[in-house]
Amino acid sequence: MENALKIYNETNQKLRAFNLTMFLNGWDTTTEAPRGSMEHRSGQIAVISEMVYRLSTDPAYENAIETLFQNREKLDEVLQHEIVLARKNLVKIKKVPIEEYIEFSRLMAEIYPVYVEAKQTNNYASYKPYLLKVIDFKKKYLVWEKTAERKGFDILLDEFEPEYGMEEFDQFFQVLKERLVPFAKMISRKKLKYNKAFTKKTFPVDGQRDFAKYLQEVMCFDPQRTVIKESEHPFTTNNGCTDVRITTHYHEDDLISAIFSSIHEMGHGLYELQIDRKLDETNSGGGVSMAMHESQSRLMENMIGRSDVFWRTHLPKLQELFPKQLKGVTVEDFVKHVNVVQRSLIRTEADELTYSLHVMVRYEIEKSIFSNRIDVEKLPEIWNKKYKQYLGVTVPDDQHGVLQDVHWSMGSFGYFPTYSLGSAYSAQIYHAMSKDLDIEKAIASGTIRPIADWLKEHIHRYGSSKYPKEILKLATGEDFNPNYYVDYLIQKYSKIYGI
Amino acid sequence: MENALKIYNETNQKLRAFNLTMFLNGWDTTTEAPRGSMEHRSGQIAVISEMVYRLSTDPAYENAIETLFQNREKLDEVLQHEIVLARKNLVKIKKVPIEEYIEFSRLMAEIYPVYVEAKQTNNYASYKPYLLKVIDFKKKYLVWEKTAERKGFDILLDEFEPEYGMEEFDQFFQVLKERLVPFAKMISRKKLKYNKAFTKKTFPVDGQRDFAKYLQEVMCFDPQRTVIKESEHPFTTNNGCTDVRITTHYHEDDLISAIFSSIHEMGHGLYELQIDRKLDETNSGGGVSMAMHESQSRLMENMIGRSDVFWRTHLPKLQELFPKQLKGVTVEDFVKHVNVVQRSLIRTEADELTYSLHVMVRYEIEKSIFSNRIDVEKLPEIWNKKYKQYLGVTVPDDQHGVLQDVHWSMGSFGYFPTYSLGSAYSAQIYHAMSKDLDIEKAIASGTIRPIADWLKEHIHRYGSSKYPKEILKLATGEDFNPNYYVDYLIQKYSKIYGI
Repeated sequence: MENALKIYNETNQKLRAFNLTMFLNGWDTTTEAPRGSMEHRSGQIAVISEMVYRLSTDPAYENAIETLFQNREKLDEVLQHEIVLARKNLVKIKKVPIEEYIEFSRLMAEIYPVYVEAKQTNNYASYKPYLLKVIDFKKKYLVWEKTAERKGFDILLDEFEPEYGMEEFDQFFQVLKERLVPFAKMISRKKLKYNKAFTKKTFPVDGQRDFAKYLQEVMCFDPQRTVIKESEHPFTTNNGCTDVRITTHYHEDDLISAIFSSIHEMGHGLYELQIDRKLDETNSGGGVSMAMHESQSRLMENMIGRSDVFWRTHLPKLQELFPKQLKGVTVEDFVKHVNVVQRSLIRTEADELTYSLHVMVRYEIEKSIFSNRIDVEKLPEIWNKKYKQYLGVTVPDDQHGVLQDVHWSMGSFGYFPTYSLGSAYSAQIYHAMSKDLDIEKAIASGTIRPIADWLKEHIHRYGSSKYPKEILKLATGEDFNPNYYVDYLIQKYSKIYGI
Repeated sequence: MENALKIYNETNQKLRAFNLTMFLNGWDTTTEAPRGSMEHRSGQIAVISEMVYRLSTDPAYENAIETLFQNREKLDEVLQHEIVLARKNLVKIKKVPIEEYIEFSRLMAEIYPVYVEAKQTNNYASYKPYLLKVIDFKKKYLVWEKTAERKGFDILLDEFEPEYGMEEFDQFFQVLKERLVPFAKMISRKKLKYNKAFTKKTFPVDGQRDFAKYLQEVMCFDPQRTVIKESEHPFTTNNGCTDVRITTHYHEDDLISAIFSSIHEMGHGLYELQIDRKLDETNSGGGVSMAMHESQSRLMENMIGRSDVFWRTHLPKLQELFPKQLKGVTVEDFVKHVNVVQRSLIRTEADELTYSLHVMVRYEIEKSIFSNRIDVEKLPEIWNKKYKQYLGVTVPDDQHGVLQDVHWSMGSFGYFPTYSLGSAYSAQIYHAMSKDLDIEKAIASGTIRPIADWLKEHIHRYGSSKYPKEILKLATGEDFNPNYYVDYLIQKYSKIYGI
């Protein structure tokens, strides 16, 4: 057992060292690598991926995991949890035939440029055969990975949000369907009146950058351990809790886009920053799940960043940076502007209220695909029909429809519902936090420090050393309850729209 | 043999993949990594370094190299050369006892902050015990690595410039001593008269950045395969020939510092960019030696960048960017300003004429250290005496003397002389190129394309697939001859100083 622990730790140390390569490569590729460098670099990354694969499936490592698993009651709590997950993971990897694994890796490399091209040229037909291959592989995957406890689409859902399956998500979306769809339809027919003149102005990037720096302090995004940079699409990435990086993208004709994407990514980042430092030397560092991560970014972006008190506190600074453009703009105008509800076609541009309806479309389609209740040849038609039904919009073309998201081209089926689940977590977490803390007063204090501290204590510090369900229960005192989310949305938008 | 080749290639592929990590880590650390991330990252890099060490000394790899070496006449020319070097390298690595290797790695990690602190606080005494340990290790190293062909300081010199030893360098520096020292002394006593008013102006960084972009085109520094960024000290780094990066540092009170450091680094970079692309998939990519690399940067910086015709061609652009500051400045003024000779204390700030005298000081000291003809306790005194002798300056303190360079703190003894050798190569190469090409006409054409093409054909494309001596002979038709360098300097500065 001592030897098993030694092999386990040494191998993990190596795997975590390889994470540095992947972290740096991803960051560099997205933010500054020269275009001509991609081919050579891909070759190197392929070699490293193979080394990682071999290391993760090395028989000595496998034996060590098995030994530790059999003796897990002798391990400390963190390691016990880790070993259960490590074993589950290894069993899964080993069920994929190596030649299928290589074939799928090749498909993943091929499909990405095809997808980008198809989206740009609005040409679903050219992309379809590739997508069908991905679906084919995923269906085979579900056969290989079937166990007594879990089968079908549940296997994929569990990979993004451990211990969640169709039963949980169906219940969740059922609540949204019943309570949110009619409310959102009603709100989206109303017009929100406010002084819109400032939204047509131009906002030079330099001033926006200065405000991002200001936000960094407000959001407690420690400059000693973070980098903020620009990229085509905003994202967060990190190497442990001492190197957390976000990107944003400034638009001169749209002041609020970069503000809210920055607050969103800083929410993700704060989670990583506040994980117990000791976990960096284990496999239990890092946020616990996609939904829990999204709960942190959405809590910051929507519940804090789009609140009245936030802008009562910070609009003056923004006006100082853009005195001409924002002259005479009131907090009420600004808060209304950042909370307008619109029936829309594109998920990533959706407002807080209708966002989950976009996700529902994707969840239902994915579920049908893997229960074979759908003709995958007809995906665009099915997509468009559901958009009409849930969002009341007519999809004009596939670019604004089934081609809009990259996820399926990365093989990520089962990912989408975590976006909504995360939003719903955030409402439940906010509710629990409000019992311990005067949140509005905290926001008004200038920085979110008291909120950050609460989140660290109740969620962040655990990293991934427990299941997300456990952490949610520890933090909020109860199991997941989607009604907090719907209650919050109905209350918020009723107030804004004066209902 | 077939199997040996397979193992050899597969291992090299892995080692080259690890190079990506080291490249990205170095770049990121120097340009943007958050300060708080260093500790965690160092741990990961240590794990990777150990993997690299184990891979490079793996018995299967060693056997493969030995087999290929025994059958080397059956290999192609590039591989033959590679195998000879690989074997030489492996034999050397294996002579270092593993515990000494680890101990020295630890010392290298310890000494750097001590050195930085000592330099800042001008405190040689606190640094001395560490430096003595480095020298001790290097002396032991010379005992381990002694062979029939090479012993003593020659072993270290050969590591930076293959096949060069004290015999070659002594001859070279003897020529400098006889011909250059008296000439430099004479020139440095003269005053160069020109309109200096513009040198006191302020030059905003934005304009300097624009000029760097302009220079990128002039110097054929392909934007598809390069990155230009800022850092504390300028440097060049690359991952093969498709990703070549340089940094610079802008000073608002000194226009020419960033210009010439950029041209210098682009010279290094152009070398890497123009290496035969096929060599990226071998171990023969990359510049062949320190001196050959320095010859490329100095040729660009000094022989091209500081020439009359260069500024006849490009001063108008610089004046366009700084119309007020450079109003009325003539090409003659500007060229004089960038070629002023000064007796100075700091090597990295030295002019072209006196630069090699700084190097000579270091070469002679290093030589004495490893022939035990020096009391290492008295390094500062010895340093100061030589500066008086060769450069005619009085060293006021160790910060401006023996503590100025980082090289010894990195264990790099034997490195310095390659700086001068590179400058001397560049004169010989320039002379050869001028037989094939009207260099002034090429510079006047706006970009250095014809010069870049000549260098690619005669030097760059070979990468490190031959010895530097061979490449120099192929490019110039003769063995190294230091008189080209001295002739060039005497002729150039006689003209500028009107002698």
